[in-house]
Amino acid sequence: MNQTSGGAEIDQLIMLLARLPGLGPRSARRAVLHLIKKKQTLMVPLQMALENALDKVCICSTCGNVDTIDPCKICVDNRRKQSGILIVVEDVADLWALERAGAGAVRYHVLGGVLSPLDGIGPDELNIANLINRASEFSEIILAVNATIEGQTTAHYITDRLGEFDLKITRLAHGVPVGGELDYLDDGTLTQALKARTDF
Amino acid sequence: MNQTSGGAEIDQLIMLLARLPGLGPRSARRAVLHLIKKKQTLMVPLQMALENALDKVCICSTCGNVDTIDPCKICVDNRRKQSGILIVVEDVADLWALERAGAGAVRYHVLGGVLSPLDGIGPDELNIANLINRASEFSEIILAVNATIEGQTTAHYITDRLGEFDLKITRLAHGVPVGGELDYLDDGTLTQALKARTDF
Repeated sequence: MNQTSGGAEIDQLIMLLARLPGLGPRSARRAVLHLIKKKQTLMVPLQMALENALDKVCICSTCGNVDTIDPCKICVDNRRKQSGILIVVEDVADLWALERAGAGAVRYHVLGGVLSPLDGIGPDELNIANLINRASEFSEIILAVNATIEGQTTAHYITDRLGEFDLKITRLAHGVPVGGELDYLDDGTLTQALKARTDF
Repeated sequence: MNQTSGGAEIDQLIMLLARLPGLGPRSARRAVLHLIKKKQTLMVPLQMALENALDKVCICSTCGNVDTIDPCKICVDNRRKQSGILIVVEDVADLWALERAGAGAVRYHVLGGVLSPLDGIGPDELNIANLINRASEFSEIILAVNATIEGQTTAHYITDRLGEFDLKITRLAHGVPVGGELDYLDDGTLTQALKARTDF
């Protein structure tokens, strides 16, 4: 059945927008009406931005980052090359988050997911072979994978594979989130925060 | 500051998507990464759908509906012309909702908002002059505006303006939503539902 009475073009646009994460059919309908209302100030620029991005955006063949050049701006940055620190992340979103947080002169490696045998995702489905290939360039590798079971399994697997290299392998600290209240924290985090307590 | 390290094209796309209702900067970033991952199956079709819609979508000069022809498919439908019923709605989204609910062989008039003097929206900012012009074509006008104070004010204003025509003017029934629980209903709705009780 048609979602709207507006014709195939509008239905098609709603159907595609509804496939974006965080949007469903209802919010996609609202979004399309908003676009039509703001035709010149939003719909036209959005169409052009998509065309531009389609034309230019590519995946960095070295690290898996998203950029408009390959290798990406982070990989070719000389200042970052000198530091010898590589941060391994699951996803480009994590890379962006670390960059916003000011991770410093580091380089990244995007795995593109985590090991998940039940979903058929083994080491070959992830960007791990490339990681092993470039590991000798670095002195420290920070495993910034999510603190989930799959994330930790992936971290252990990578640590094993990197055993042959002379490398410092670290992970992000667990603890109380800045601004967080103890009362709302889960037991696991509190236990870790107690264990890893630091001098005041 | 840049939202991402991905370059101006990606930042621009995120910025525009974040302006859609229901999306913010965080969900726009997720949406863009999702688009880049599904380049061929989602990003390309979305760009084409936007281009198509921009090319074809227009506002019906008779009723204010969104369609690819003007007058829209609803206005030129002969079956609907015979019924003589006009439903007045605030927004195209309401028109779509009524059509999905199977409102029948009716025509619509989209006001494009409600009277709201504090926001500078008077009768001239709404599609009311057109409504008065076409009112003589109909035998019944259903005021399907939202049950808000502004909606009801707008309904009263339109009823006054339509006083000169020989018309039946009605509004949607208030009552218990189908599937709703009394315990969760506000007092105003319950009072209305009691007043308008029907034979069982």
